Amino acid sequence: MKRSEFESWTRAELDAVESALEAWVPASTPACLGLAMRYGVLDGGKRVRPLLVLAACQAVGGLREAAMRAACAVELIHAYSLIHDDMPCMDNDVLRRGKPTVHVEFDEATALLVGDALQTLAFQLLAEHRLADEPRAQLEMVKLLAVAAGSRGMAGGQAIDLESTGKVLALPELEVMHIHKTGALIRAAVLIGAACGKPLAETERAGLDRYAKAVGLAFQVVDDLLDTEGSTATLGKTAGKDSKQGKPTYVSAIGAARAKELAEELRSDAQAALRPLGSRAARLESLADFVVLRKF
Amino acid sequence: MKRSEFESWTRAELDAVESALEAWVPASTPACLGLAMRYGVLDGGKRVRPLLVLAACQAVGGLREAAMRAACAVELIHAYSLIHDDMPCMDNDVLRRGKPTVHVEFDEATALLVGDALQTLAFQLLAEHRLADEPRAQLEMVKLLAVAAGSRGMAGGQAIDLESTGKVLALPELEVMHIHKTGALIRAAVLIGAACGKPLAETERAGLDRYAKAVGLAFQVVDDLLDTEGSTATLGKTAGKDSKQGKPTYVSAIGAARAKELAEELRSDAQAALRPLGSRAARLESLADFVVLRKF
Repeated sequence: MKRSEFESWTRAELDAVESALEAWVPASTPACLGLAMRYGVLDGGKRVRPLLVLAACQAVGGLREAAMRAACAVELIHAYSLIHDDMPCMDNDVLRRGKPTVHVEFDEATALLVGDALQTLAFQLLAEHRLADEPRAQLEMVKLLAVAAGSRGMAGGQAIDLESTGKVLALPELEVMHIHKTGALIRAAVLIGAACGKPLAETERAGLDRYAKAVGLAFQVVDDLLDTEGSTATLGKTAGKDSKQGKPTYVSAIGAARAKELAEELRSDAQAALRPLGSRAARLESLADFVVLRKF
Repeated sequence: MKRSEFESWTRAELDAVESALEAWVPASTPACLGLAMRYGVLDGGKRVRPLLVLAACQAVGGLREAAMRAACAVELIHAYSLIHDDMPCMDNDVLRRGKPTVHVEFDEATALLVGDALQTLAFQLLAEHRLADEPRAQLEMVKLLAVAAGSRGMAGGQAIDLESTGKVLALPELEVMHIHKTGALIRAAVLIGAACGKPLAETERAGLDRYAKAVGLAFQVVDDLLDTEGSTATLGKTAGKDSKQGKPTYVSAIGAARAKELAEELRSDAQAALRPLGSRAARLESLADFVVLRKF
């Protein structure tokens, strides 16, 4: 896919995701909860996960309305995890997506509730409207999201992260942490997007899954590189915080040069895995480029 | 229903709920997350919400396996809310269900993750197995739970609670807070239990809904009375903390004598609302007695 074509697709989809989140994250809630939820979600972030949902849905010819709800649901899970992760008892960070973090802008109790309510809203979005011809496919989306976000997925990865701070992890242990912490939700984004269409052939599904796993790991390798090499202004979050907090990263485990090679290998692997899907997967292919080549 | 009969039903169901939670809250997770999740959920609590789910399911002749999963899902949402609510940035409480709170026994970061992961697990339980003849009924359960737990339900109620601390609320405002904070999830427990069976006639559904709303409010009125009149040892949580923290309660708003009358009125109303369901609703009727007459 031509770069300009990918960029205009991305721009249009980011606008559509923003509008959908605008519509679905409620402003009118008791107290100021809705306001704080909107602060934590709207107007920020790369939205890589929603783009993966939408591209995967398009690759399988799935239903757009379903994919847009699923894309927002995945993004809400991601946003809630960032808000809780930034709280003083976790990473204690003050800057996220170029703005003060939710607990800084509001307070800790509000940040706690905002994260809680955004997680709930993710599941509500997947359940409250008919999203698939087959309600069973819709339940499958709920299950994929729950397993990816839960104790054997993202939350489990956060727990490993907590336990690992200040330790040196070997590469396999680091990989286990990231497969949970970042990888599970990115993988779910692709599989949920694909669940918006007709059931896939086994080779197609296996290819998508291999793609999703490789992109998930590549995302984290590049995140670790950017934490070392990027600036706070470009990243919109505090640069260099992982090493300052003594967190094991790909850079600390294998060095920056090898981490860059690894990101490249994962990109190639991800793109090779898409072959069974043919040209329909062009956007997913370009997203792997984006994940690895991004500067923020 | 005879009191002894109700008590033996309750004992058997509480054992069944405990076994189900034992089986479904995973011990083997990354790091110590599973251990802390089990600490936060197992072996404690009145389990009023699971009993309501099970009794409502039985009142409509629904599927037991579905109701048990739904009962545990509702209890997980309740348990997560208590764990987050006890954290230092919220109520800062050290005792819950007769044990040190999760952030005291483990630490704050773990308590945050435990709450997050228990919420996710609630939705996973509802989605990962076939629970109803009609998958659409199962999606309806996910929706009921999400709406009840979210920003227009329980989390919204917590936000009103935060904003109201130190204020005097008039009775209607107090009621709005509790309809969200406690009422929404109790109401959902009844409706989710009923969703495990065949669709109800409109009078039956309306009756159950009126019952559920009245029981939810009665529960909170009695909670406020017990906070004033109960002891920490009996309650298993810190007695007198609402008034100490300047929280508006039914006792502060209308006095203990009127609050007791109100609880009785709500009990009568709840039980009257069950009439369209006939004798099948005997356990729900007894549960209204339990909610109002309990000493803990």
